[in-house]
Amino acid sequence: MARDQLRRAVIIAVGSELLTPDRLDTNSLFLTQRLNELGVSVRCKLVIGDDPADIGAALLLAIPKADIVVITGGLGPTEDDVTREAVAAALGLPLEEDAEVAAAIRSRFAARGLPMPATNRRQALIPKGAAVLPNPNGTAPGLWIERPEVVCVVLPGPPRELHGMFDAAARSRLAPAAGRRGIFRRVVHVTGRTESYVDEAASPVYSRWRSAPVPIAGQIELHLAARAATPEDAARALDAATGELEAVLGRDLVSSDGASLEEVVGRLLRARGQRVAVAESCTGGLIASRLTDVPGSSAYVHGGWVAYDNAAKTAQLGVDRG
Amino acid sequence: MARDQLRRAVIIAVGSELLTPDRLDTNSLFLTQRLNELGVSVRCKLVIGDDPADIGAALLLAIPKADIVVITGGLGPTEDDVTREAVAAALGLPLEEDAEVAAAIRSRFAARGLPMPATNRRQALIPKGAAVLPNPNGTAPGLWIERPEVVCVVLPGPPRELHGMFDAAARSRLAPAAGRRGIFRRVVHVTGRTESYVDEAASPVYSRWRSAPVPIAGQIELHLAARAATPEDAARALDAATGELEAVLGRDLVSSDGASLEEVVGRLLRARGQRVAVAESCTGGLIASRLTDVPGSSAYVHGGWVAYDNAAKTAQLGVDRG
Repeated sequence: MARDQLRRAVIIAVGSELLTPDRLDTNSLFLTQRLNELGVSVRCKLVIGDDPADIGAALLLAIPKADIVVITGGLGPTEDDVTREAVAAALGLPLEEDAEVAAAIRSRFAARGLPMPATNRRQALIPKGAAVLPNPNGTAPGLWIERPEVVCVVLPGPPRELHGMFDAAARSRLAPAAGRRGIFRRVVHVTGRTESYVDEAASPVYSRWRSAPVPIAGQIELHLAARAATPEDAARALDAATGELEAVLGRDLVSSDGASLEEVVGRLLRARGQRVAVAESCTGGLIASRLTDVPGSSAYVHGGWVAYDNAAKTAQLGVDRG
Repeated sequence: MARDQLRRAVIIAVGSELLTPDRLDTNSLFLTQRLNELGVSVRCKLVIGDDPADIGAALLLAIPKADIVVITGGLGPTEDDVTREAVAAALGLPLEEDAEVAAAIRSRFAARGLPMPATNRRQALIPKGAAVLPNPNGTAPGLWIERPEVVCVVLPGPPRELHGMFDAAARSRLAPAAGRRGIFRRVVHVTGRTESYVDEAASPVYSRWRSAPVPIAGQIELHLAARAATPEDAARALDAATGELEAVLGRDLVSSDGASLEEVVGRLLRARGQRVAVAESCTGGLIASRLTDVPGSSAYVHGGWVAYDNAAKTAQLGVDRG
């Protein structure tokens, strides 16, 4: 495939549970980040149920709008999992059992001393001409289907399987065809200031970073984005941007590597060889809880007192009743 | 519009930020719950950027698949907000300034002693024939566009404006046309048991509740769903289901009204007029934090000790070194 052919992606998440009030498709966030790093922008996201007709219609709708269509979910062994069959039918490709895949699934069960359930056999059915993407974390293989007009990548829904397969197999196949300036992101944390203050203070910087918009989320994060050919070039660009933000935000800037406030506090205590104890009232244990959320925090967190009612304040902390 | 005409919905979320690795469309969860209660099922969800062509294409794609298309986002006053214009163009409707809407926006600014910015005037442009859905929490009015083939409802993206407008204006317009058996949900919390144990114990119940699937989320929630003509009928059906679950799960069932473990603990302490103090170690304040997350918990939470390292265990709690 020619270089620079993959520019626009459509992500299709398959799963009837994703159309209830209880579930969101979060796989698309991981995929968007990976695709952006390869210079592929996401033009549209679709969520549809486990319905062959809807899956086929979504795929055919997406093809003219995208250079690459990523479909996640519905590759499991149960009758509800119809993505494999729906994609094959929509693209007019017959399904053929892949001996290697069948053997791999069989050995995966054998390794646990189990026979392969008949239902899992379906997972060895591959659309004619498709390449198989091995699944390091499960039985469902992924599919790489290259057509003149589009590349169709079919990945499993469970995040662990999806992430493993994308990084192990899909990414390397996409890179040569994408291979353009990727979009790399960095999150800067700010604390102790209002959103409007941060917005005003930071705007002179990010107004000069038009190509790197800085939306501000509720808890005051600055999201920097830079287009670059390599992660190294991106790092240099983002270092420059964060340097400028540090200059205007000073000590209000907590971290420029995505680290949370409690992680930064932990780093400082470690660096100084200091330990901390907390005395809390209305925070009710939240400070201790956040400090101890950080792995290895026992190295610098002694413990603390939660004096929630007035009696406790007096008894534990000797606070004057007055 | 004839009764029972609105069965299937497509939800379209508009916003380029929703196509980055940092943001998810969560409005669709609220809309799905409300639509389900009206007996409308969600067939497909789309997320697209602030692009007139993409918005128009998404709408025209959705119409043949749905009785109702709900579009959220892109109704703001800035140049990025193009949903109003895109929908009007896609449906072939000219935009006309609505005097009442313009007056409402102007008075909203006047109330704060501000003149109406020229940009906000755009928010008074209404597609010919569309009904205006007032916005109790903002300046952007919503749109109700009834066509022979579909009802198109356009709502603002900010959750507070979306929720307020749906419940105040959209719901009552949908109800007569939907008016079928709605889907009502209830969440049952279980604690102290593994997912597989709960799955096995509960399956005899929910196998007889086929129409009410019970997916099990990580923290072991049982999600019951019942189709019913009224909330009262649904409540009776769900009471019966939770009663059966209580019979098989016994004391492992924490609540059947969605209340969290800490809320239930609080209710019990209040009922018994008891107060609680906690002594924590590796939970590092999490127990105190969760207990005090409940509004009014100062009525029964005294406070506690977070003895995180061994020195603290000995000093605070007199734990034997041995």
